[in-house]
Amino acid sequence: MDHEKYMRMALELAAQAEGDGDVPVGCVIVKADRVIGRGRNRREERGDATAHAEVEAIRDACARTGSWRLTDCTLYVTLEPCPMCAGAIINSRIRTLRYGTRDDKAGCCGSVLNLFEERFNHHPRIYQGPLKEECESQLQDFFRGLREKSGEI
Amino acid sequence: MDHEKYMRMALELAAQAEGDGDVPVGCVIVKADRVIGRGRNRREERGDATAHAEVEAIRDACARTGSWRLTDCTLYVTLEPCPMCAGAIINSRIRTLRYGTRDDKAGCCGSVLNLFEERFNHHPRIYQGPLKEECESQLQDFFRGLREKSGEI
Repeated sequence: MDHEKYMRMALELAAQAEGDGDVPVGCVIVKADRVIGRGRNRREERGDATAHAEVEAIRDACARTGSWRLTDCTLYVTLEPCPMCAGAIINSRIRTLRYGTRDDKAGCCGSVLNLFEERFNHHPRIYQGPLKEECESQLQDFFRGLREKSGEI
Repeated sequence: MDHEKYMRMALELAAQAEGDGDVPVGCVIVKADRVIGRGRNRREERGDATAHAEVEAIRDACARTGSWRLTDCTLYVTLEPCPMCAGAIINSRIRTLRYGTRDDKAGCCGSVLNLFEERFNHHPRIYQGPLKEECESQLQDFFRGLREKSGEI
């Protein structure tokens, strides 16, 4: 699997989210080297607290495959999942998770806690990267831009 | 607030989920003594891993209020939330959570872990009940029925 290619797709989706006024987070789900789900953060655009990139991509993949079980899939996301998204990854039986950069405030792959090591009924394999630096820069640039607009800098 | 009235509404939604072949879980969200969101488990019906009762109710409430912030709301759900739903409750800034019965396999109000006591940016108030027994019986009856159908009993 070309991990870099798929993480780059997630970065492009994240850039689209930013274009619509949302924090740039993007996600793709891949099965047998084919993209079966795409999502990007649409919380502000849709006014929906559940519209994070991973939940959007999981819903897309479920709709396309006609099943809630995404057993043999890899999920690529630019930012470490929050509890809701980590839970959605467990619920959908995603086999492998690859995330770009850490989220010190809400990350559930070890930053706040590791939800995947708890006593739930499914344990995906977790990897950080590829494109960690690009994922980190995209978010840092976005938040720097927000601070500049609000006159903090 | 008439907690029993709202938990009974959640039980009715759960019964509808069961009628459509899903595990019976129902949820309502209340703001200023008015129901602003309803949800029931539709995982099997829709083939969507994210279609749990709480996520459905939160999406409904966000759509009706036009905001992802459900700040002054109480969420009633018949079963202790899983990690995804507990995370969605945190993300939507729900003020108060009332759940019916415990979920020893996935519950995040203390059964597997207490996600609401972790270092996230929002901490709802959590209560168990009312109608704990009714919520428990509804699920037990459902799973007994499944076992009978599959010939285990």
